[in-house]
Amino acid sequence: MKKRHVFCISDGTGITANSLGHALLSQFEQTEFIQTSLPYIDTPEKARDVCQKIEEAFTKDQAPPIVFSTMVKPELLKIIKKSPGLTLDFLETFIDPLEKTLQEKSSHTVGRSHGMVDYATYKRRIDALNFSLNTDDGASINQYDKADVILIGVSRSGKTPTSLYLSLQFGLFVANYPITDHELESTTLPSALQPYQNKLFGLTIDVGRLMAIRSERRPNSEYASEKQCAFELNAVEKILKRAQIPYLNATHLSVEELATRILVFQSGKPHE
Amino acid sequence: MKKRHVFCISDGTGITANSLGHALLSQFEQTEFIQTSLPYIDTPEKARDVCQKIEEAFTKDQAPPIVFSTMVKPELLKIIKKSPGLTLDFLETFIDPLEKTLQEKSSHTVGRSHGMVDYATYKRRIDALNFSLNTDDGASINQYDKADVILIGVSRSGKTPTSLYLSLQFGLFVANYPITDHELESTTLPSALQPYQNKLFGLTIDVGRLMAIRSERRPNSEYASEKQCAFELNAVEKILKRAQIPYLNATHLSVEELATRILVFQSGKPHE
Repeated sequence: MKKRHVFCISDGTGITANSLGHALLSQFEQTEFIQTSLPYIDTPEKARDVCQKIEEAFTKDQAPPIVFSTMVKPELLKIIKKSPGLTLDFLETFIDPLEKTLQEKSSHTVGRSHGMVDYATYKRRIDALNFSLNTDDGASINQYDKADVILIGVSRSGKTPTSLYLSLQFGLFVANYPITDHELESTTLPSALQPYQNKLFGLTIDVGRLMAIRSERRPNSEYASEKQCAFELNAVEKILKRAQIPYLNATHLSVEELATRILVFQSGKPHE
Repeated sequence: MKKRHVFCISDGTGITANSLGHALLSQFEQTEFIQTSLPYIDTPEKARDVCQKIEEAFTKDQAPPIVFSTMVKPELLKIIKKSPGLTLDFLETFIDPLEKTLQEKSSHTVGRSHGMVDYATYKRRIDALNFSLNTDDGASINQYDKADVILIGVSRSGKTPTSLYLSLQFGLFVANYPITDHELESTTLPSALQPYQNKLFGLTIDVGRLMAIRSERRPNSEYASEKQCAFELNAVEKILKRAQIPYLNATHLSVEELATRILVFQSGKPHE
């Protein structure tokens, strides 16, 4: 397989440069990419060091390294562009058409994207994360009136990572509640959940995947057996269907995909 | 303040379109942006619905709405471009120079960016998150040999959100350990931490911010008092300095910024 060096550089965290670089490179499957993230390139000296790294990679690859950049400071970008890399700068490319349509000059301020510039919004994300941690795995049911979403499903169906991602990234207050053995014997919602029906969202998962995940935790246990997993999943699906609760099968969806789909569902609901 | 509608659209999760749109718009401070995320626009019907929304916003603003897009399917992007919005498509703009330098056609495959395409890497992120949850707040010290990083600091200095972000985003196994009252009376590292000195990273915070955060949790408590906060912060700083442990002041840094700086530190360390 062909190899090519890739640099994601930024005078801030580089999260945006990485995200976009990743999205673009994932469209090319015949090349192996050797990726380096270089955040906080915020002085001419650091920029020149980066050029050095790009040159070394150029010598190795015998082809221009790919440089994804979100440099806010034009003077630093200028230095990077002297390197033999193919520099794709996201800000530079799009700032010009935006300045035209907004009839406003951009501020060239570093750190506004992933910093805590809007402190109220930032604080909400941290508060939401604390809420999700405090209400993880059926804890603190008495706080459910504050929840935006309550995820339900069997143990190990992906509720916790999805809750934490939704809270940290989007500031949503997300509780999660595992439906357990004796509750599964009924086909109705556990009574603790009944007052919050419009906040509920279900996660299911394929039997094989659930067995694999549970086996890692408790190998050869009843908990991880095909019989137990199938019973729990069937029972939860019955409850979800009967109570008309929206749900997703988490087997082939990443945390990001689950979270985004739950957000779409949320935003489609009539506001209370 | 001028207002302008903004749409972030994608045939996938839209996380990349949102991240880049946010980075770009944060450079314009004189306009108020009314932002709508529209993920999973994956059929011509949905694309036409989006055009409708863009047209309505155009009528309201009397100016072209801004459309940030990462549409992998060219036929869907074509529909969006018929709208009166200013469409800035990140993939289209950069795919062409990448195809040229890589001498390879892009695959036009949706969902490779934030999905679970590389299952081993994805699984590591989830395993790392579970590790960080299990070792949160000084729990499961017996698992510290598996940790990549152990964050230390006083209670409420930002250890938990930083740990969770590092694990979920980067697959790093991050434990965190609160240094508590009786340990602060000594100026040496707590004995539980001593075997792991090269994994330790400290977080400090300004007294005023710590008081505010603790007051929210326990108003008018000794725990939130200026005297107690100042004592703990001084003591922790002494320990960190004496043991030569790298540390950051979390007061003005977001979780993203803290995490990125810790990663930079990590990658700069000699490999073991």
